[in-house]
Amino acid sequence: MDRRDFVSSMTALSATGLVGLTPSRLDWRQAPIVVNGERLNRHLTELSAFGRTDTGTNRVAYSEGDLAGRRYVQGLMTAAGLDVRIDTAGNILGRRPGTDPSLPTLLFGSHIDSVTDGGNYDGDVGSIGAIEVAHTLIEREVPTRHPLEVVIFQNEEGGTIGSKLMSSGLTPTEFDRIMRSEITIRDGTEIIGGDLTRLDQALRKRGDLLCYLELHIEQGGLLEQTGIQIGVVEGIVGLRWFEVTFTGFANHAGTTPMDQRQDAMLAAARFTVAINEAIRSEPGRQVATVGRLIAVPGTTNVIPGSATLTIDLRDLSVDTLTHFTTSFQAIGQRIATETDTTFAMRPTSTNEPAPTDPRLRQIIEEAAGSLRLTSRRMPSGAGHDAQEIAHIAPVGMIFVPSVGGISHSPNELTRPEDATNGANVLLQTVLTVDRQGLG
Amino acid sequence: MDRRDFVSSMTALSATGLVGLTPSRLDWRQAPIVVNGERLNRHLTELSAFGRTDTGTNRVAYSEGDLAGRRYVQGLMTAAGLDVRIDTAGNILGRRPGTDPSLPTLLFGSHIDSVTDGGNYDGDVGSIGAIEVAHTLIEREVPTRHPLEVVIFQNEEGGTIGSKLMSSGLTPTEFDRIMRSEITIRDGTEIIGGDLTRLDQALRKRGDLLCYLELHIEQGGLLEQTGIQIGVVEGIVGLRWFEVTFTGFANHAGTTPMDQRQDAMLAAARFTVAINEAIRSEPGRQVATVGRLIAVPGTTNVIPGSATLTIDLRDLSVDTLTHFTTSFQAIGQRIATETDTTFAMRPTSTNEPAPTDPRLRQIIEEAAGSLRLTSRRMPSGAGHDAQEIAHIAPVGMIFVPSVGGISHSPNELTRPEDATNGANVLLQTVLTVDRQGLG
Repeated sequence: MDRRDFVSSMTALSATGLVGLTPSRLDWRQAPIVVNGERLNRHLTELSAFGRTDTGTNRVAYSEGDLAGRRYVQGLMTAAGLDVRIDTAGNILGRRPGTDPSLPTLLFGSHIDSVTDGGNYDGDVGSIGAIEVAHTLIEREVPTRHPLEVVIFQNEEGGTIGSKLMSSGLTPTEFDRIMRSEITIRDGTEIIGGDLTRLDQALRKRGDLLCYLELHIEQGGLLEQTGIQIGVVEGIVGLRWFEVTFTGFANHAGTTPMDQRQDAMLAAARFTVAINEAIRSEPGRQVATVGRLIAVPGTTNVIPGSATLTIDLRDLSVDTLTHFTTSFQAIGQRIATETDTTFAMRPTSTNEPAPTDPRLRQIIEEAAGSLRLTSRRMPSGAGHDAQEIAHIAPVGMIFVPSVGGISHSPNELTRPEDATNGANVLLQTVLTVDRQGLG
Repeated sequence: MDRRDFVSSMTALSATGLVGLTPSRLDWRQAPIVVNGERLNRHLTELSAFGRTDTGTNRVAYSEGDLAGRRYVQGLMTAAGLDVRIDTAGNILGRRPGTDPSLPTLLFGSHIDSVTDGGNYDGDVGSIGAIEVAHTLIEREVPTRHPLEVVIFQNEEGGTIGSKLMSSGLTPTEFDRIMRSEITIRDGTEIIGGDLTRLDQALRKRGDLLCYLELHIEQGGLLEQTGIQIGVVEGIVGLRWFEVTFTGFANHAGTTPMDQRQDAMLAAARFTVAINEAIRSEPGRQVATVGRLIAVPGTTNVIPGSATLTIDLRDLSVDTLTHFTTSFQAIGQRIATETDTTFAMRPTSTNEPAPTDPRLRQIIEEAAGSLRLTSRRMPSGAGHDAQEIAHIAPVGMIFVPSVGGISHSPNELTRPEDATNGANVLLQTVLTVDRQGLG
């Protein structure tokens, strides 16, 4: 309802005598304006058709499905009344002017590209939710002081590419990386309408943005398990990736006695078990995963001469990441000595933790409360575009539950009411930040 | 030296008065006849030229190198005075008649095919050694009562194919297997001169052979480490191959807390460590190896939903093999319960242990002693053609040291004096078995 509807309905309700309205409760700003949940979920369903295959959603960056999905959301943004453009980095932007042209832009959005065999909610809920928030404000003719910009970042799943191009840029080598669509970032960015010769025009600098807000599915099971409706994200965890190699001596599995082996597989297995024990032995929410282990030569009847495994280590605290990095190195050295192998551990990727803005956490929490939604603070274990924009602006993130904690899977599901709740919290947060600023 | 030389030298030595010769010690049969070690090692070197590449010996069955090597050894056999033929299974046979046509054949030999990037001793020492033994007996005109047959089995490395075709045959499916030369056993057997329509003619039945003797390199480090010259093989260990799969649930490495994971990689790693501990915790020479471990999806940032590994379990005792099979199953079930995964273990290959003939062990041991060579009894951890012929005849095996225990590698090395020692033990064993029989 808009202001006029609200005032007339409150007056009518008061006249019934069923509720006692005080003058202050008649202030229209106290009755939360809400999004059109039916429209939001219908748009989510419509978007899911693009890139759908028998094995899941395949809207990997620069693929036909991605291009079709991008056309679809541009149509939604135009229909919502936004002024739509593609920036030189290939990000889709939809702008609505504010009442005060001197103020910085309030940016919110997410991404619509998917992983291989992904689902319909990761990125989509935040993207369609952001468009719905803008659509609601425009059709209800609710003005904002700050200009609003809805962003659909390009290629989040390939390494938060669009948000990197908006905040810090990419190295030439990174542009050469080939995506699952078999297209490089370089070529893909051109295909989606970017312009590599003018990338500087896509960069925002500190002060350009009032803040960046992102609604996203949790991609974990915490909210659903605890029955809480909204997650107030404390930050995106930092990440350390390592490649660990144990080198022993390949030998005949039949003729080499057990006490004369330099078994790289055994060393790698002991390491995998030991770092799991180490990470669990201390309080905290740190996680470590061994996702791949390749032994060479990798045949049934040869004791592996080398074994290489990957580590994915995450936490919100740099100190914790450093502590476990040191711990894993000590464990590897000890196991190498015990197994007569050598140990090497080299970093392959690093993301620093990206804390959200404390003021935005509080505003999101209060927005949830004003909508009678339960909320809790939590880290984000997954990476998001917000971590890149955090380099140049305050960021805030709103999580909604994922059924069973499942993500990056065709079985990914966020219930319609949760998507609507999330969009409403985003809407209230936008309005509060616009009104209060972050001064 | 031949008999005439021996008698004259003994007479001369006796005349010096430096040794006291009794009439019995003048018996020429007590002075061991020996092979021509220089010729043997020259032939080994010549054979090594066939299939040689930058990365090792590549005389894989049915390859150009294998065909050339086969032509070379046929030439050696003909030059030695053997009557050479290819049986319908593609095995090369060189025959020398015995003095008693009613007696069964005394068979000895090995193989000359190699693994990919192999060395010059596995199979070659026993093949060239067998030809040298026959050559020595023929040129010294030493008769034997039994017919002698030198055999060069086809395709040992691809699964003891030639010896299987001589003893028990292959199933049609096995004939379809594709070798590293990209040729099936079916086609390869024809290429090397076999005749698939008359394979029954290559089969020997129990009673056809007095015994089969095989000289081979140890392919392990036991003899070299203990400084012993000859291994008297107690038998070829039995083998059980298994494929083990743990199934958990693939999930996001960042968003899934440590206590909510169903991590198939962790289960597989714990299993690898636990079966290693189990196999080492009991006395005996049993060995178990995990040579390959494949986790799915196998990416850095996903907790593996499934992990499949191979087990290679070997021992000389069927009871021990059965005991550890049961033990591994129990370990797998326990770890599956502890890690919230499921466990499956299926056999992929089985070879029963093939003990050597106890009388032949003793004869080999005594032959080594008569040559003043040190010897010890030991199992063979590797498979050999002897294990197939054991189905139809008594078998004996003689091991010589491998430097550093290295095998199936270009670094494989058996010293010339060890190759000569092995051939001399084979020669003495042939003579003793021929004289005594195994009645």
